[in-house]
Amino acid sequence: MNGAQALLRTLVAGGVDTCFMNPGTSEMHFVAALDDVVAMRGVLALFEGVATGAADGYARMAGGPAAVLLHLGPGLGNGLANLHNARRAATPIVNVVGDHATYHKHYDAPLESDIDAVAATVSGWVHRPMEAAAVGPAAADAVRAALGPPGRVATLILPADASWSEGAAPAPPHPRPRPAPPDQGAVASVAGALRSGRPVGFLIGGRACRADALALLGAVAAAYGARLITETFPARMERGAGIVAADRLAYLGEMAVTQLQGLAHLVLVDARSPVSFFAYPGKPSDLVPDGTEVLALTQPGQDVMAALEALSGELGVDASSAPAAEARRPARPDGAALGRESFGQVVGALLPEGVIVTDEANTSGLFLAGATAGAPPHDWLTLTGGAIGIGLPLAVGAAVACPDRRVLALESDGSAMYSAPALWTMAREGLDVTTVICSNRSYAILNMELQRVGASAGGERARAMLDLSRPDLDFVSLANGMGVPATRAETATELADQLARALASEGPNLIDAVITR
Amino acid sequence: MNGAQALLRTLVAGGVDTCFMNPGTSEMHFVAALDDVVAMRGVLALFEGVATGAADGYARMAGGPAAVLLHLGPGLGNGLANLHNARRAATPIVNVVGDHATYHKHYDAPLESDIDAVAATVSGWVHRPMEAAAVGPAAADAVRAALGPPGRVATLILPADASWSEGAAPAPPHPRPRPAPPDQGAVASVAGALRSGRPVGFLIGGRACRADALALLGAVAAAYGARLITETFPARMERGAGIVAADRLAYLGEMAVTQLQGLAHLVLVDARSPVSFFAYPGKPSDLVPDGTEVLALTQPGQDVMAALEALSGELGVDASSAPAAEARRPARPDGAALGRESFGQVVGALLPEGVIVTDEANTSGLFLAGATAGAPPHDWLTLTGGAIGIGLPLAVGAAVACPDRRVLALESDGSAMYSAPALWTMAREGLDVTTVICSNRSYAILNMELQRVGASAGGERARAMLDLSRPDLDFVSLANGMGVPATRAETATELADQLARALASEGPNLIDAVITR
Repeated sequence: MNGAQALLRTLVAGGVDTCFMNPGTSEMHFVAALDDVVAMRGVLALFEGVATGAADGYARMAGGPAAVLLHLGPGLGNGLANLHNARRAATPIVNVVGDHATYHKHYDAPLESDIDAVAATVSGWVHRPMEAAAVGPAAADAVRAALGPPGRVATLILPADASWSEGAAPAPPHPRPRPAPPDQGAVASVAGALRSGRPVGFLIGGRACRADALALLGAVAAAYGARLITETFPARMERGAGIVAADRLAYLGEMAVTQLQGLAHLVLVDARSPVSFFAYPGKPSDLVPDGTEVLALTQPGQDVMAALEALSGELGVDASSAPAAEARRPARPDGAALGRESFGQVVGALLPEGVIVTDEANTSGLFLAGATAGAPPHDWLTLTGGAIGIGLPLAVGAAVACPDRRVLALESDGSAMYSAPALWTMAREGLDVTTVICSNRSYAILNMELQRVGASAGGERARAMLDLSRPDLDFVSLANGMGVPATRAETATELADQLARALASEGPNLIDAVITR
Repeated sequence: MNGAQALLRTLVAGGVDTCFMNPGTSEMHFVAALDDVVAMRGVLALFEGVATGAADGYARMAGGPAAVLLHLGPGLGNGLANLHNARRAATPIVNVVGDHATYHKHYDAPLESDIDAVAATVSGWVHRPMEAAAVGPAAADAVRAALGPPGRVATLILPADASWSEGAAPAPPHPRPRPAPPDQGAVASVAGALRSGRPVGFLIGGRACRADALALLGAVAAAYGARLITETFPARMERGAGIVAADRLAYLGEMAVTQLQGLAHLVLVDARSPVSFFAYPGKPSDLVPDGTEVLALTQPGQDVMAALEALSGELGVDASSAPAAEARRPARPDGAALGRESFGQVVGALLPEGVIVTDEANTSGLFLAGATAGAPPHDWLTLTGGAIGIGLPLAVGAAVACPDRRVLALESDGSAMYSAPALWTMAREGLDVTTVICSNRSYAILNMELQRVGASAGGERARAMLDLSRPDLDFVSLANGMGVPATRAETATELADQLARALASEGPNLIDAVITR
C-alpha cells in the first residue's frame, strides 16, 4: 500500500469521507487512490478557493471535517482566503497540500515555495510526513487536530514520494476529542450578574447559535430580562419560527456601540469581545461601552451546551420556557420595484422550511434579517472572516453535506466574481443550490466605506475603482457558461416568480436580480 | 499631504505610473488619492490574481514595474499564485498590501492575519512603514528593491493609519540601480570552452532571450558550432523572422536530457542549471547529462548584454554575422479538422508582426513553436512558475503596457478558469486582446502526468477529477457575461476566419476553439 492509499483509508476510518480538490501532478497518486478507496468521494473544483470554501460549508453543516486537496504553494495561495474564513469560523478542515518529493525540493524547481510559512498563517496544526510509513499516523493526527475543539484547519503537507512509495498502512482513528467541561466559577459569575438585577446582554457565537443553545439562553434571558445578541458574523445560525431569536451585532461600529449601550454586563458565550471590523479615524476599535463589564461564560474548547445547562440549572430555569420566534412572513411585494427592501420581502415570503442560506449579500442584504425572522426554521451561514468570495463555495459544501435540503445562496455581484467557478461544481454534482445574485453593479460597501474612513469626497477616478458597470456583468451568461440554468429578474414580481420556481426545481439554478436601489 | 498621496507621488516620480488593484476598506485613501495624483492610472481587477498577473505582464513588456494594490492577507492570498510566477520571472513589481491601522492589529479583528509571513514567500523585499512620514521613503525604497537587478516583488505593507494620516511627503526616487559588470573570469572560461572544439550548448534565459542578446549568441554559436537552447519557460522571448532562433528546452525531463546529450559544456546565460519540473519515481531531478560540465557566463544581477559583448569581443565575432530565422509560415489548414496541429498552423499562418503572445496553451500548444518560428517578429511570454491561471492576466498587463500592439492570449480551458475575470478588465479598459481558448475539456496534462508518475492506470473515479466536461464550459457565454464578444470555432477554417477577423478588430474578443484531438 502506498502513502496515498493509506492516507485515504485513514481519513475514511476517521469519518472524513469527502474531499474537495483541485489536484496537480504531485497529487496524482492521491487521485489514483480514489479508485482504490471508493468510500472517499472526490469533488472537483476548478479553482482552489472553491474547494476550501466548500470544505468550510460542508463542515459547518455536517459537524465534522471534509478534506481538501491542493497543489503545492500556489494552490494553497489560491485557497488561502477561504481557509482564513474557515479559521475565523473555527471550522474543522483536513487540508492536504501536495508537495514535491522530499529529495526534489533542494533543486528549487519552478513550483517550489515555502508552503509551511503560508500554511501556518491559517492552520492550527501543520505537519509534513517524510516517508510513506508516516502518512497514516499523520492523517489520524490531522483529523484529531482539525476537530479541536475548537475546530481548526489542520494542514498535512504531503511529499510526492511519501505519497507514491509503498510500505504505508492506515492508522486507526484517535478517539474523538471531547470539549473541556465548563468552568463552574464562570457559571457562578454569570449567574451572579443576572441575579444582580443590573442589565445583562449575552453575546452569542459559534455553537451557541444553534437552536438547543438558544432555547437555554432564551429561557435565562426571559427569566432575568437579559438581551440576546449574536456576533456579527456567526458561522451557522439556526433561526426562524419556533426558534429563540437573537439580534445580530451591527457591522458598523457606531451602531454596535449603540446596541450595547446601557449594559452593566456583557456575557460572552462562545464569542469574543466585540471589536470594530476595521479601524476608522477617530473611532474606537474596542466596541465595549464604557462601564460595561465583560464576562466569559465559556473559553475556547469548552463544552458550550454543558455551560448553558449548568447556568440554567444554577438559575432554575427550563429551556421549554423560552419564548420562540413566531411564524410570520412578509407578503410578496408584487408590483414593487426591485430594491433591497423588496428583495428582503421576496426572500422572507418564500423561504422554505429547512433551507440552508449562505449569506454574502453584503449591502444588498440590509433587510434580510427582519424579513426572514419568522420564516420556517432554517440555517444561516455567514462570511466569518471578511474575505469575500465564500458564498458560492459555502453553498457547494453545504449542499454536498445535506443532499436532502435545498441551499439558497444570496450573493453580491462583486463577491461572486472571486469564486464563480463554484457554479460549475454545482452543475457537475447536480447540487440543489439556488443562487440569487444581487447585482447592484458596484462595490457598494466600499462606496460607503470611502466616506466612513474620511477619505476625500471620492472623485471620478476613485469612484471608477468601486464601480462594476462598464461593462455590466451578465450573470445569466456566466451561469449558462458553467452549465447552470439562469434567469434575470428586474422587478419584485419577476424575482418572486423566478425564486418560487427555482426553489421547487431540482439541481442548481441562478437568478440575476438587478437590485440597484 | 497624507501617506497615500505621498505614496502615489513617490511611485510616479520613480516611474511607476500604473496600478492594478482590487481594493477594500483599508485601501480607501489610496483609492481616493487617484483623484489627487492623476498621473497614476488605476486599473480595476475583479480578482487579485488578475491584478498580480497583469503587473507581471506589464513589467515584462514595459521594462519597469507596475504597482499592485491588494486588501490585507486574504487579498494577498488571492494574488499569491501569480506573484509566485512573477518571482520566477524575476519581474519587478511594487506590491502594496493594505493592512489594518497599526493600533487596530492587536484587537485581532476578523480580517487580521500574518501578512508578513505570506508576503515573504514571494518577495525579495518586505517593509511596513509605521507612520505617514515613513511612507514616501518606503515607496522609493520599494521601487529600488523591485528593480533589483534581478527584478523582484517588493511588498510594501501599508497600515491604514499610515495611509490616512497627514504629515507625509513624497520621497525623491533613488538612482535606477545598475547591473553588476560581468565576471571576466567567467567570460574567459566560456571562451576557452568554445575554443576547445568540444560540443558546447548555451542555455539561455531572462534578458538573454531578447533579440539583441540572441544576435550576439547566434554569432558566437555559428562561429563555434555551438547550440542555442532557451530555458523551458522564458519570461519574454523575442522571436520570429529576422531574429536568431533557439530551441526551447523540453518540459519532459527525459526529452530534455536527450536534447542536452553529448554536450561537453552547458553555458548558462541568465539561466539556471536545468532541473526536472516535477519529481518522478526512478527519474533524475538534475537534467544535466553525465559528463556535461556546467559553466555560468552570468550570475544573477550581472549585466547580461555586457557579458555577451565581452564574450563576442574576446572571440572576435560580430553580431551582424548571426544567422537569423527565415520568414516562412505554414499554409492555412483549410478543410482540416481542428486539432493541436491545425491549431498551430492557423496561428502560424496568421500571426501579425509585433503581436505579443501570452502562452498558456499547455498541451494544446504542442505545435505552436514550430509553426510560428518564421512568423513576423513577435514577443512570446510564458508561464514561468508553473502556477496556472496567468495567461489572461498577463495579456491584460501586456496590453496596458503596449497600447499600440495587439496581444494574443493562447489559453487552455482549465487554466482560464483560475482568473477568468481578466476578461472583464479587458472589456472595461478596451484592451486590444484576442483570446483563443483551447477547449480540450480536460486537465489534459494531468492525464499524461497520471501515467508518468506511475500512478495505477487511472480508474473512472480518478479520471473524473481530470475531466472538464459534464458540463462543458461554454467560453462564448462566459466571455459575453463579462462584456467580451466571442465566437466558437469547431473546424480549422472557422478558427482561421475568426482569428483573422479578431486580430484585425479593435478591443478585446475571444474564440472558443474546440480542440479535442
